[in-house]
Amino acid sequence: MMNAMKEFFNVINLDEVFEYIHKFPPVGVEKITLPQTVGRILAEDIISDIDLPDFRRSTMDGFAVQGVSTFGASEGNPAYLSVKGAVVMGESPDYSIGPGEAVKISTGGMLPQGADSVIMIEHTGKIDETTIEAYRSVAPGQNVIEVGEDYTKGTTVLTAGTKIRPQETGLLAAFGKTSANVYKQPVIGIISTGDEIVTIDEIPGPGQIRDINTYTLSGLVQQTGARSVSFGIVHDYFKALSDKCNQALSQCDMVLVSGGSSVGVRDLTIDVLTSLKDTNIFFHGISISPGKPTILAKVQRKAFWGLPGHVVSAMIVYSRIVKPFVEHISGLAQQFDRDLRTQAILSRNLPSAQGRVDYIRVRLLHKKGTLWAEPILGKSGLINTMVQADGLIEIGMNTEGLEKGTEVEVLPL
Amino acid sequence: MMNAMKEFFNVINLDEVFEYIHKFPPVGVEKITLPQTVGRILAEDIISDIDLPDFRRSTMDGFAVQGVSTFGASEGNPAYLSVKGAVVMGESPDYSIGPGEAVKISTGGMLPQGADSVIMIEHTGKIDETTIEAYRSVAPGQNVIEVGEDYTKGTTVLTAGTKIRPQETGLLAAFGKTSANVYKQPVIGIISTGDEIVTIDEIPGPGQIRDINTYTLSGLVQQTGARSVSFGIVHDYFKALSDKCNQALSQCDMVLVSGGSSVGVRDLTIDVLTSLKDTNIFFHGISISPGKPTILAKVQRKAFWGLPGHVVSAMIVYSRIVKPFVEHISGLAQQFDRDLRTQAILSRNLPSAQGRVDYIRVRLLHKKGTLWAEPILGKSGLINTMVQADGLIEIGMNTEGLEKGTEVEVLPL
Repeated sequence: MMNAMKEFFNVINLDEVFEYIHKFPPVGVEKITLPQTVGRILAEDIISDIDLPDFRRSTMDGFAVQGVSTFGASEGNPAYLSVKGAVVMGESPDYSIGPGEAVKISTGGMLPQGADSVIMIEHTGKIDETTIEAYRSVAPGQNVIEVGEDYTKGTTVLTAGTKIRPQETGLLAAFGKTSANVYKQPVIGIISTGDEIVTIDEIPGPGQIRDINTYTLSGLVQQTGARSVSFGIVHDYFKALSDKCNQALSQCDMVLVSGGSSVGVRDLTIDVLTSLKDTNIFFHGISISPGKPTILAKVQRKAFWGLPGHVVSAMIVYSRIVKPFVEHISGLAQQFDRDLRTQAILSRNLPSAQGRVDYIRVRLLHKKGTLWAEPILGKSGLINTMVQADGLIEIGMNTEGLEKGTEVEVLPL
Repeated sequence: MMNAMKEFFNVINLDEVFEYIHKFPPVGVEKITLPQTVGRILAEDIISDIDLPDFRRSTMDGFAVQGVSTFGASEGNPAYLSVKGAVVMGESPDYSIGPGEAVKISTGGMLPQGADSVIMIEHTGKIDETTIEAYRSVAPGQNVIEVGEDYTKGTTVLTAGTKIRPQETGLLAAFGKTSANVYKQPVIGIISTGDEIVTIDEIPGPGQIRDINTYTLSGLVQQTGARSVSFGIVHDYFKALSDKCNQALSQCDMVLVSGGSSVGVRDLTIDVLTSLKDTNIFFHGISISPGKPTILAKVQRKAFWGLPGHVVSAMIVYSRIVKPFVEHISGLAQQFDRDLRTQAILSRNLPSAQGRVDYIRVRLLHKKGTLWAEPILGKSGLINTMVQADGLIEIGMNTEGLEKGTEVEVLPL
């Protein structure tokens, strides 16, 4: 029943795709200053070279005491304490205290020798200039951060491959790292193909349409923390595409070509890829929908993707398939998956073909205290369906479909 | 029982905090080129000036036909069609077709006059150079994107206040927008206070600690899509802080001062704020934990925040309280909440005081097919608790606590 035409020659399942991820190494390391680190991937292990903190700090405004001096204290039976002075912030107290003694201290202040705890100012009353009464007892260690309680000296506090959030930048600050070694941001080349595609500053003639994929794919690449370089639109001629691919390969760490990965008569990507120097085609076709006509090749040690031309398909393939490869060459370790997913209730029945993974665009709606995932069913050439969508749900290979009312996980878009 | 000291003079509940958000207008508008728009907030409505697409496009590789010519076709009883030629991509076919006729067409090609549908190439067979047989019937409209099916001319396709994702950038591309009016990114000034704080390139002496809040808060501001400007560390002297606040106010759209917002003897922020020209203090204290000692003032039309000095408290107050204010002055509309939250199962009982909202740091763990939220209990001066955390859970004002096994929503960190 098939016409005499090229077929997908190596269709693989979704879970096999990620076996190729380790064929492509991270792109390299650079040193950047601390304020630039947020969102970057750490390329070195960080070992604490001091105890943090390296002195006992008060966590409250109050009085540093020996806990034992307050044992049994209550409002009806306060403990009387003799005030020896006040801790100056940022300085080491040059005296020690004993039983029955107290020193005024602010949050973050250094406890004097002899003190083991801090009684909150709210739990004390002033008797005279050198005497207070304490209305509660405090246990040794109470309202105090001990030496090394945050991190002890010699600990590995961060490991290479960690994505740096604001708290990791703060941690580097705590250890006095004014700069850090991070993985370079990979440069991803983007090529749009198709004789019907015109640039966005042109008025499309009959049968023509403006280039969308360059902009959606560049945006997705930027969101992944990589750099995008656009190589514009290439028309469907072998030499034009071949030249552009070679140009992109020489300047980039990975190349995405959208359009021309299907099996139509004029689909050139696979032919051009095959002709490039030092090419290994890993697969042509993934059993997913949308996005089946996806190609991955290794060309001159770099990942080279053929993506579907339909805007929705190209975005979904990037988000679910290409992005982990970009993150991998960005140095991100295969650590705990911090991708948060939202549970929602499916608002209608969804049929699905067995033998492939289906991605369904959904809109999230709060209705009567329930979060609903409402499928957006539309052709994969319609960008409005992606503008309306808040996320995707994935229907597994061996699932025939999902019933209305099923709890589903929504992957953000 | 309270010592003679300044008290929080205006503690408010969490839900009242956001009533102040509209006291602060968005910071202004600028025009930027299309590739820069991802992550920015649109400042204009976008109206479609053309139908998208403005011609009937094929969604498949195949033959454009009149559906009626294929009605009743099957493998045993194919319909024979006369092939009139092939559609050239990006061109308008200069002929029309009638019943029993077909024209070869690729995905994205323009249907000729007379054609109303496309039969997939897989469902046809070639008889000779000018004849094919069709093994299936297609309905009118099948495998075709109609004129205006994505967007019709004159529609408002995006509204001001929308956060631009890659798909919205793609939509702007489709309508030929080479630039867009977006809200300016607000500039947020950051000041750290405390006599015990030293810069990160210093070796802390006894009782001293490096500045962390400048880096965590700058990182959070960057993640919100705003620009951060650090004004360094100010020691606890009225004039020094007052001068620095005036400097920050003259250069920024919002100012964050961390430390010094509590009610200790040396806590100056509230005094300095009160002394600034044209100040209105909205609240001093929010019934949340951690983060109670938070101040919001309007100073010379700008939001001025006093944040707690503890690193964890400052980060949580930014994430849950300050961030929506930054987003508001960034022009983000109060649209559907796209913040995705993850449901997880609480791994232990959590007590909580009534009358305040508690934020609990949690680590997410996959164990035996269940996603667990494991509380990280630690002092709010310990940054390691934020490095370990994947998110926060919120325990409401009127809740006494949560039991192990409760389903909780996790807000990402």
